[in-house]
Amino acid sequence: MKLLLTGFDPFGKDDINPSFEAVKKMPDKIEGIDILKLEIPTIFNKCAEIIHQQIVETKPDIILCIGQAGGRYAITPERVAINLDDARIADNAGQKPVDRKIKNDGQTAYFSQLPIKKMSKAIISSGLHSCVSNSAGTFVCNHIMYQVQYMIDKEFNNIKAGFIHIPFLPSQIINRPNMPCLSLEDDVRGLTAAIKAITQ
Amino acid sequence: MKLLLTGFDPFGKDDINPSFEAVKKMPDKIEGIDILKLEIPTIFNKCAEIIHQQIVETKPDIILCIGQAGGRYAITPERVAINLDDARIADNAGQKPVDRKIKNDGQTAYFSQLPIKKMSKAIISSGLHSCVSNSAGTFVCNHIMYQVQYMIDKEFNNIKAGFIHIPFLPSQIINRPNMPCLSLEDDVRGLTAAIKAITQ
Amino acid sequence: MKLLLTGFDPFGKDDINPSFEAVKKMPDKIEGIDILKLEIPTIFNKCAEIIHQQIVETKPDIILCIGQAGGRYAITPERVAINLDDARIADNAGQKPVDRKIKNDGQTAYFSQLPIKKMSKAIISSGLHSCVSNSAGTFVCNHIMYQVQYMIDKEFNNIKAGFIHIPFLPSQIINRPNMPCLSLEDDVRGLTAAIKAITQ
Amino acid sequence: MKLLLTGFDPFGKDDINPSFEAVKKMPDKIEGIDILKLEIPTIFNKCAEIIHQQIVETKPDIILCIGQAGGRYAITPERVAINLDDARIADNAGQKPVDRKIKNDGQTAYFSQLPIKKMSKAIISSGLHSCVSNSAGTFVCNHIMYQVQYMIDKEFNNIKAGFIHIPFLPSQIINRPNMPCLSLEDDVRGLTAAIKAITQ
Repeated sequence: MKLLLTGFDPFGKDDINPSFEAVKKMPDKIEGIDILKLEIPTIFNKCAEIIHQQIVETKPDIILCIGQAGGRYAITPERVAINLDDARIADNAGQKPVDRKIKNDGQTAYFSQLPIKKMSKAIISSGLHSCVSNSAGTFVCNHIMYQVQYMIDKEFNNIKAGFIHIPFLPSQIINRPNMPCLSLEDDVRGLTAAIKAITQ
Repeated sequence: MKLLLTGFDPFGKDDINPSFEAVKKMPDKIEGIDILKLEIPTIFNKCAEIIHQQIVETKPDIILCIGQAGGRYAITPERVAINLDDARIADNAGQKPVDRKIKNDGQTAYFSQLPIKKMSKAIISSGLHSCVSNSAGTFVCNHIMYQVQYMIDKEFNNIKAGFIHIPFLPSQIINRPNMPCLSLEDDVRGLTAAIKAITQ
Repeated sequence: MKLLLTGFDPFGKDDINPSFEAVKKMPDKIEGIDILKLEIPTIFNKCAEIIHQQIVETKPDIILCIGQAGGRYAITPERVAINLDDARIADNAGQKPVDRKIKNDGQTAYFSQLPIKKMSKAIISSGLHSCVSNSAGTFVCNHIMYQVQYMIDKEFNNIKAGFIHIPFLPSQIINRPNMPCLSLEDDVRGLTAAIKAITQ
Repeated sequence: MKLLLTGFDPFGKDDINPSFEAVKKMPDKIEGIDILKLEIPTIFNKCAEIIHQQIVETKPDIILCIGQAGGRYAITPERVAINLDDARIADNAGQKPVDRKIKNDGQTAYFSQLPIKKMSKAIISSGLHSCVSNSAGTFVCNHIMYQVQYMIDKEFNNIKAGFIHIPFLPSQIINRPNMPCLSLEDDVRGLTAAIKAITQ
């Protein structure tokens, strides 16, 4: 069994993105599952093209995308992606879509196929706080979660996919007072627990 | 040169206290300074007696007390201790003083002799957020910071002393939603940087 | 033109709900629009039956539902409702659905027909903070927003509808430290500005 | 009996200061006490000179200074003022003292003579959240609280004095996301309750 695990490159004013930093540090095998790691760009559509190509080439059974959610206190599996791009800042290609439908022939929203509550409980059992989130926002994180679901809907019906948001790293909050953080070690521990929960 | 480094035992509803957990993991020597580690009880007055005895026995040059500040986002060196105990919960001996002077012949407040801003900057340079705090509260943390200053004032004029508050550990916020945390590894890194700043 | 404006009755541990308190204090006419005020129970499905009956009887052009979002700092127009009930506490009839679809033949989600960004800007112009929210949660607020959209989709195609969340009242945060609040007067001011933005 | 009630003029990037706005709206008489209202400048030392002159001229029995504490969720009576100015931003005369003693012959800190817990309870009874604060910061608020206590210590032994911090107004948080606020009406209600508690 293969799990495609993606993280984003840095965006906005940050020169680091905890999502791919954590992905890089993850084990290559978890409970017998091969973990295929992939960095994707924080660019609308482009990130989806790259994942689509990777699906065709490597035929993963599960796709789990990781993204940064600055301001969150915990590792949060996402429940749902909505058919909408609405960016407050530019992506890494300078795109800043406002109130734009992602796919004209896509559903209004897609729910994750992953066991989000079981994943959240597993993260808690690993010693970290976690809860399910009901919004992945309207930037590239929601975009890729939606796009992957759209691919599943239209093309790859057997794949199960989902998204997990992680907090800022400690180094990212130095100039952001009253912002919570989580260490890379804790990210890796929590994400590993979540993946075990998916595969059991 | 010797630095006495203290941490508290767990109190309230927690079965762990990040302060002594961090102290235990600290190096035994930092930049040539001997680090003497001591666990003190979260008990008004009793904690001061134990430190007093330790001062007499080991003659430290510097005393740095570490305490837990649940709710804080960063490692925060304290600027000042006030002559007042005012407990909302009982200490570990069941004492719950309300609006009680700590020492009738003590000053209204004592400022730390440690270079708190330099320490804060050193913590930031180590990759973590930090800022100076202007209140150590009115529970046992402020109490011991005040008591040590009182001892310096009355008896041990050559000692320099101070206090640093650290956030909850990740495991402590599992049932405390929207509370920030910091890992033990980051506590150790930040405190080590702060101690280097003291001794340079 | 008629606007049906609903607020909920109190739920959980609160004996007041800012949403119907605000609705009660709203003017009966705003910019020539008749404001029809309705209290609905914080009960899954039941609240929808009551609104359905009201639509049949009064034929409103616009439906705006107001709900309490404890913990929010501002008046927040909601963008989208999802096809899911997932309650952490019981509603006022003791129901506590978990991961339950609201309508088997409904869309995965519905977007509001109201000009949410224009409403948000109008609230700001009235002197209050506001931003668009991308999740109405999974309790009765999201439920009624979804149910009204479902009615529009299946039965009342000409109605436009939406939802606005408002913060706790000052009296509700007395025993909830570090929780933001907004006064009833400010709620009324912000909601009035939002309704003007809808109708212009 | 006379109570001198002061509020500050706007400072930093704000063009309004809730403290004097609230003071202006307070009744002129509370439970038989004459309320003398005074705007003081957000300027180190200058604010103290103005209050000193006012004391000489009007001979108040009680002095209560009000100040803005952006970020606080509640009306908070202050317990203690420390002998230290440490400004992160310039005052309204461009002064930005760093780690400067306020008075060389003053105590390290002064406690308020006002019944801070009784005041806090009275604010709560008026329907608002409140708690005692243990730090008035190190800007002009702490400065004036300290200066007034110093005047009492050295010159006007019969005066009782204290300080209350109030949150941002709703209009001040429009461009400050995730910041709590309180309305002017609630400020006036809470401060009136606090003054009644002082005089009873």
